[in-house]
Amino acid sequence: MNHDIQTWIEQVRAGDTRALARAISDVENRQPGWSELLKALFPHTGKARILGLTGAPGAGKSTLVNQLAKHYRKDNQTVGIIAVDPTSPYTGGAILGDRIRMQDHYNDPGIYIRSMATRGSLGGLARTTADVATVLDASGRDRILIETVGVGQDEVDIVRLADVTVVILVPGMGDDVQTIKAGIMEIADIFVINKSDREGAERVEREIRAMQSLDTRKDGWTPPIVKTVASEGVGTKELAAAIADYESYLKKENLAFKKNVENWQERLIEMLRDAMLEKVQAQVDGGSVQRYAAEIAEHKRDPYTLVEEIVRGINRS
Amino acid sequence: MNHDIQTWIEQVRAGDTRALARAISDVENRQPGWSELLKALFPHTGKARILGLTGAPGAGKSTLVNQLAKHYRKDNQTVGIIAVDPTSPYTGGAILGDRIRMQDHYNDPGIYIRSMATRGSLGGLARTTADVATVLDASGRDRILIETVGVGQDEVDIVRLADVTVVILVPGMGDDVQTIKAGIMEIADIFVINKSDREGAERVEREIRAMQSLDTRKDGWTPPIVKTVASEGVGTKELAAAIADYESYLKKENLAFKKNVENWQERLIEMLRDAMLEKVQAQVDGGSVQRYAAEIAEHKRDPYTLVEEIVRGINRS
Repeated sequence: MNHDIQTWIEQVRAGDTRALARAISDVENRQPGWSELLKALFPHTGKARILGLTGAPGAGKSTLVNQLAKHYRKDNQTVGIIAVDPTSPYTGGAILGDRIRMQDHYNDPGIYIRSMATRGSLGGLARTTADVATVLDASGRDRILIETVGVGQDEVDIVRLADVTVVILVPGMGDDVQTIKAGIMEIADIFVINKSDREGAERVEREIRAMQSLDTRKDGWTPPIVKTVASEGVGTKELAAAIADYESYLKKENLAFKKNVENWQERLIEMLRDAMLEKVQAQVDGGSVQRYAAEIAEHKRDPYTLVEEIVRGINRS
Repeated sequence: MNHDIQTWIEQVRAGDTRALARAISDVENRQPGWSELLKALFPHTGKARILGLTGAPGAGKSTLVNQLAKHYRKDNQTVGIIAVDPTSPYTGGAILGDRIRMQDHYNDPGIYIRSMATRGSLGGLARTTADVATVLDASGRDRILIETVGVGQDEVDIVRLADVTVVILVPGMGDDVQTIKAGIMEIADIFVINKSDREGAERVEREIRAMQSLDTRKDGWTPPIVKTVASEGVGTKELAAAIADYESYLKKENLAFKKNVENWQERLIEMLRDAMLEKVQAQVDGGSVQRYAAEIAEHKRDPYTLVEEIVRGINRS
């Protein structure tokens, strides 16, 4: 590793915000050297506690995350926020939202916020989010809060890397518990009913309880339900307490390490798959892919045999 | 290829329902020989027209698909339905729903229905759905209708393989156009407002129009909006007409082939990635992955270097 990178890494570890921002950008955009950077940072990770928060659009995730961040700051913990915002050409709010939220904490270097869009890479968002979390972890943040919209597999994958997962529901959004993406309810370590001053909060609570009665978790934990009104700061303290409870439980039952190993098993497989795909793409250039695709579309070639041939070819090289 | 498989393939092509069901099961569950089967069937595909229908849970997709199926049957077209149902331990409705729906068409071998759950394979559902569609296509179905819940990237990938994509919205479900998964609105060739006798149908229509005014499609097509009340069969004919219109447009502008090539480009990359992943998994057994994961969790090993080493190792072998 050259001297510049060494200096850079020391700056990141010392909490230098500009060095951190540059490191995150390089990792997020897969700039040359991103993987060397992660290799160098990895040994300095493992101290941050990672919290995943997910919920439907409009559930008040950002507001709740802001409240939690303030809570941890009062406790002198440093905070990194990764807001994963699946933008579309129609909505495209990630960058704007980021700027607005940054203003809120402009004078506090103890809070670092980064928005990420789902644009781009095929299934790569969960992986990039994990890598950004690694950088934040190495920078010495005590808490990393990852917020995502709970609508798809990407989001399930993202929150899976968290030590503690909070699923946020709201009353009366047509957002019946049943319509939440399959797989989201199951990953909740804690449920939050936000905007709980609205009509229907009790109904949401009953629905969660009903679901819980159908299924018990392998680890024996029953996810508590915390009611909040994030816009007024109501329930933030209780949520932080519920998070601390679950963290103690994980520690007491020695579950944190086990969870971590399981998570790394899945991440390793994904990383291997991505690495292999890069290899394929290096071998089969875009022009060939297009030509093959045309031959398949004309039914002159069957894709199943073609894939076998390409994979064999790579193996031989 | 042995004699049995040859016979089997001829049965599938002749439209034998039992042979078809067995072929689909083998492909869906990746039974030994599944890829040989697809290789043999592929040359006989390309005739079916594939329609993708997606919408939030409760939007009435199944009912609408049933109505469309009946409509095509009246026109003497054979129909295959693939219902992709992301079930969770809590909901788990795929199999039940399948049985109920099958009864509806029990006496008509011209309609074949198959439900698939999202359970299992990492990101593999879109691929399996495409492979099942290949089998149905080879079996001589004129129309293949694929219905999915429009909540995640999987679903976007699934409908991408369709020639025509229908996005189904409903009024007053808290299902504002804005809250639909990013990427879903953009893929609509036709919008359906189902349950359009409910209050709020005009509002949904206005919202779609507003979005369309912000963005024009590269292919110059403006997705029409069809209002239906699927439970009463209202609007089915109009929807079928809108589908036929778009099919004519695709043909006239020679877009169908182009779309097909683009789709195959993406599918090829995915197939190559999956094939490489299988190679990795054959090389790195589960036990090693677990051991590596533990070492990473203990921070004794960095995953980025490890992945490079494994990929290099595979290359050398």
